[in-house]
Amino acid sequence: MLALQSPLDMHLHLREQEMLQLVAPLSARSFAGAVIMPNLVQPVNSRDRLVSYRRAIVSACGTDTFIPYMTLFFREYTREELLAVRQDIIGIKLYPAGITTQSDAGVRDFDSIAATVSLLEELDIPLLVHGESSGFVMDRETEFLQVYAKLAGNFPKLRVVMEHISTAASLEFLERYNNVAATVTLHHLLLTLDDVAGGLLQPHLFCKPIAKTPRDRDALRQAVLQGHPQLMFGSDSAPHPRHAKECCGCAAGIFSAPVALPMLVQLFDGAGCLEALQTFVTGNAVRFYRIKPPEKMVQLRQKSWRVPEVYGTVRPFLAGQELQWSFADQDN
Amino acid sequence: MLALQSPLDMHLHLREQEMLQLVAPLSARSFAGAVIMPNLVQPVNSRDRLVSYRRAIVSACGTDTFIPYMTLFFREYTREELLAVRQDIIGIKLYPAGITTQSDAGVRDFDSIAATVSLLEELDIPLLVHGESSGFVMDRETEFLQVYAKLAGNFPKLRVVMEHISTAASLEFLERYNNVAATVTLHHLLLTLDDVAGGLLQPHLFCKPIAKTPRDRDALRQAVLQGHPQLMFGSDSAPHPRHAKECCGCAAGIFSAPVALPMLVQLFDGAGCLEALQTFVTGNAVRFYRIKPPEKMVQLRQKSWRVPEVYGTVRPFLAGQELQWSFADQDN
Repeated sequence: MLALQSPLDMHLHLREQEMLQLVAPLSARSFAGAVIMPNLVQPVNSRDRLVSYRRAIVSACGTDTFIPYMTLFFREYTREELLAVRQDIIGIKLYPAGITTQSDAGVRDFDSIAATVSLLEELDIPLLVHGESSGFVMDRETEFLQVYAKLAGNFPKLRVVMEHISTAASLEFLERYNNVAATVTLHHLLLTLDDVAGGLLQPHLFCKPIAKTPRDRDALRQAVLQGHPQLMFGSDSAPHPRHAKECCGCAAGIFSAPVALPMLVQLFDGAGCLEALQTFVTGNAVRFYRIKPPEKMVQLRQKSWRVPEVYGTVRPFLAGQELQWSFADQDN
Repeated sequence: MLALQSPLDMHLHLREQEMLQLVAPLSARSFAGAVIMPNLVQPVNSRDRLVSYRRAIVSACGTDTFIPYMTLFFREYTREELLAVRQDIIGIKLYPAGITTQSDAGVRDFDSIAATVSLLEELDIPLLVHGESSGFVMDRETEFLQVYAKLAGNFPKLRVVMEHISTAASLEFLERYNNVAATVTLHHLLLTLDDVAGGLLQPHLFCKPIAKTPRDRDALRQAVLQGHPQLMFGSDSAPHPRHAKECCGCAAGIFSAPVALPMLVQLFDGAGCLEALQTFVTGNAVRFYRIKPPEKMVQLRQKSWRVPEVYGTVRPFLAGQELQWSFADQDN
């Protein structure tokens, strides 16, 4: 038996309506809170939208032991707007325009954002960033490091989060800045491009940033297993209905919410590093974001179960595979 | 109007039965001949299978101006077997085991093939090779160059064809050997990994070897446009029914047969290099393989048409796109 104290998912897509109803309880079961991404079909970029989206999430979760840490979609904000929303958000999420699902309203010119970024620094609001250039798909994250360098260097008191890092280069970069942290997904700890496109093509393992080389995967894995203080777990769990994944132009996103915590335990346990897991899923995030998640003990036991092929309309990560750890209250 | 004299497709998958009936006429219309791949569900690895497969192809093509240049699937062959089949084949096709569609019967140990390869050299039978290691997907072709180096170096009179090369490294390698040529597909002249996985995931652009970097694509393109004497056109057109491409584990292969010649003309014409096209689609192959294809004039005109979304059960390369050149006898 293993008890995790208030595990957190620091990067989560919950969508809206039926999909929200389907996936929110699966995250609420595993985690004490999650950072909610704002890239809905209509971006969450006003306090009104934020409040109504949070209400929908709380209702869908059906528990008071799960906090949705809300984010606003980056645009030019005034000081007044930011002051008004400051207590309602954990940070602002910046997308380069067009780089991933529902990011058309993102930033096109990084030279034009200094005023808003400066306000974030002044008001101590963290900036969460999807860090990819529009270059060659395997180089996008590394090419974006120059933007991170400007953000972290020009705004030394701004807290910057490199979201879902996927390369050894990002890890090396991170270590040069005190004001920068990063989230790491489960799938980037497990996959390389070989898993996506080395045998048959696997749309359900297709995500952004795309899984990289074995060297990248191994560097990330080693860092989290050793308790790297700047790395926080963020699943980037992103459900799409099967028809959007198994088609002639397939959406990016891996739905890992229902398997994230058991698989993380399996990964850390298998490497003999279970003691680093609490740091990865709670400690680093609490310290960086200065949050106090609800007290919530999540218990897992070493009892195998088979991941369902589908949850509603969504095929989950590791579908059909046998995992070694399950939730203590789970009917295996 | 443009007239091409006996264009050839030096790498083609025609499959069997209904699929053969569907796709063979589309190649026979465009080309005076094609090198037929032997990786059927049951590999073509005996004279009996070869003769019956050729008969089925000729019947499906319905024309005597298209020659199927047959290949045998590589295994250990005796001198007697090779002597018996020598006049019926253009070469032997070698697959590393498991590296692509229907290659399970391929070679597992490259140290064990010297006896048969030596016979091929002695009997002057070309060896056609799918050159990929089992390493990281983006490195497989480059890692395989050491095998090519042994084949070309240890058997200096053996004619070796590097099939469907996809990297600048293969091109540089090729130029060091007189006894080596290579085929280049249409799609490797047009695509990079960005087209496959840079936006939405595109199963219909997924092939083996996988499309590589812009630098690789541009190096190949420049070489064929400049009339590189060791490069032959080979479409690697490989039809799969849509249900095998749009699913949760999608087959590799691009069906380019119906668009290959018009799109090649468009590519060469757009670069102002039309004079190099005849060399690429006929001259280099005739010289390397010492073949005399049937006299067949294929005429194309500068008149646009839209590529159908589907041929039977198969979605073609460039589906729905408008091409600038069409066959002179085509109903646009």
